[in-house]
Amino acid sequence: MALLLHSTPERREIWGRVFAEAGELFFATEAEVTDPEEVTHIACWIPPNDLSRYPNLSAVIGVGAGTDHMPPLPEGVALSRTVAPGIEAMVRDWVVLAVLALHRDLPLYLDQATRGEWVTHKTRLARTRRVGIMGMGRIGTLVAQTLGAMDFEVLGWSRAAKAIDGVETFGGDDLDGFLSRSDILVGLLPLTDDTRGILDDRLFARLPRGAGLVQAGRGAQMDMEALRRALNGGQLLAAMLDVTDPEPLPPDHWAWADPRVIVTPHIGAQTDAEEGAQHALAVIRAGREGAPLPGLVDRARGY
Amino acid sequence: MALLLHSTPERREIWGRVFAEAGELFFATEAEVTDPEEVTHIACWIPPNDLSRYPNLSAVIGVGAGTDHMPPLPEGVALSRTVAPGIEAMVRDWVVLAVLALHRDLPLYLDQATRGEWVTHKTRLARTRRVGIMGMGRIGTLVAQTLGAMDFEVLGWSRAAKAIDGVETFGGDDLDGFLSRSDILVGLLPLTDDTRGILDDRLFARLPRGAGLVQAGRGAQMDMEALRRALNGGQLLAAMLDVTDPEPLPPDHWAWADPRVIVTPHIGAQTDAEEGAQHALAVIRAGREGAPLPGLVDRARGY
Repeated sequence: MALLLHSTPERREIWGRVFAEAGELFFATEAEVTDPEEVTHIACWIPPNDLSRYPNLSAVIGVGAGTDHMPPLPEGVALSRTVAPGIEAMVRDWVVLAVLALHRDLPLYLDQATRGEWVTHKTRLARTRRVGIMGMGRIGTLVAQTLGAMDFEVLGWSRAAKAIDGVETFGGDDLDGFLSRSDILVGLLPLTDDTRGILDDRLFARLPRGAGLVQAGRGAQMDMEALRRALNGGQLLAAMLDVTDPEPLPPDHWAWADPRVIVTPHIGAQTDAEEGAQHALAVIRAGREGAPLPGLVDRARGY
Repeated sequence: MALLLHSTPERREIWGRVFAEAGELFFATEAEVTDPEEVTHIACWIPPNDLSRYPNLSAVIGVGAGTDHMPPLPEGVALSRTVAPGIEAMVRDWVVLAVLALHRDLPLYLDQATRGEWVTHKTRLARTRRVGIMGMGRIGTLVAQTLGAMDFEVLGWSRAAKAIDGVETFGGDDLDGFLSRSDILVGLLPLTDDTRGILDDRLFARLPRGAGLVQAGRGAQMDMEALRRALNGGQLLAAMLDVTDPEPLPPDHWAWADPRVIVTPHIGAQTDAEEGAQHALAVIRAGREGAPLPGLVDRARGY
């Protein structure tokens, strides 16, 4: 059994050390592979083009938080996405930053600052602001806990409603009830056939007038022109986006220049190399022991 | 016993209702006062000029979070600052926003956005970032708890070191030890003779190189030119300020235009009118019962 890493030079060094310490066989590049039959695991963002070279491949391990970009894998090859506390905490940090930025009117104050305007606006208590989280997986739950501890009223929506302490949760069939009470909507959904393009004119129209949008899911979930229409019509007051359509956002895209929109270049999560390597080791060990693979992706469901 | 409110029309209405419901005597303006001898309490940001008009005045109640701007009061008149969970939570929210903004390089990404640049930089885990809080009163403690729950390493400095769960605390004589370990320094001190001008060249020089600064104390605590020098020399990477010197910051001040600095116009806390009125009622009742006054300020100490 051996793992082939298909990634950046910086990661190679850290993974090499972690695997050496664990006594597991490791190839830092495809060129290093002497006997392709040894390769049972490949860790990558996008796999090498020709996987038929590796007849004993049992699992591909995605090194990011999502795996929607993964091509179909050969029959019998499992897909695992990296489960790392660091990724989840990083996305949580970005989302809490974004929710607080909208809650405290940062886009408005940044716009005033360009003109040197010292003008204050009324501040609301967090407990009067309802934050609706779309996608209540591990990250959504973490966000809900942090915002709940800061006194926000937190609502959660997911395909199957979940019971989470202190969070009012909604199931897939009650999207309208959820949206109508979300003063700030947080997108944390995985990209699937069901969620592609979900953030559109129709969805924005169901939010309370003057709502805020925080999007940390996937770019293809949002119609950027629908966002522009919702902002221009006053249905949305402001938005903070870490994912866009397309990515990268072209330099002349309207969203960069719109004072109501803050764009960051998909920085929500970066897998810590050490944590990523530890996850890969856990996948290898689980395979050897016949235990369930950590982070196993249901490709029919999409996450 | 009666309370005279010396404040804005908007507050008058809410205070009037709260006092009516409590059955306490209330004057919404000085003009409404028919018998000045009835006035035992005055609630205000700055008191009326001539307090000698009110011979039975027992306490002045400051409606903001600080009272450093209050003039000397007549002998025997106590000063109470509004203690309201809402004020504390609002400042906490702003400080957490600012710490996250610096932690996640928001000034850098906002600057890139002005040029439509989609360029990512390495993200750090919160647990690798040390946040040093200067001023561990009620707000500082709340900030420490929230940031600690988000995995930041939290340090606290106050005149007398305090024991707070999960926070490494330093006393007044160990400022150097505290500063040398603060990757992000948070200013939450009250304004006193000891803290006036405390954020100067000498203090910035003791921080780790490339530190961030969050300032939510009082404008007069910082030498703005020292901040500029620390930024230009690379000792500080970025700063987020809610208080400045002077206030308001003039439209042509360098800080507005500096991409490394985010300025908000002293919006950290606004006393919720309802909470402010409830605090005033608590002061009146404590006086009547001979109990300790809520929010009593030690004017020699300054807070």
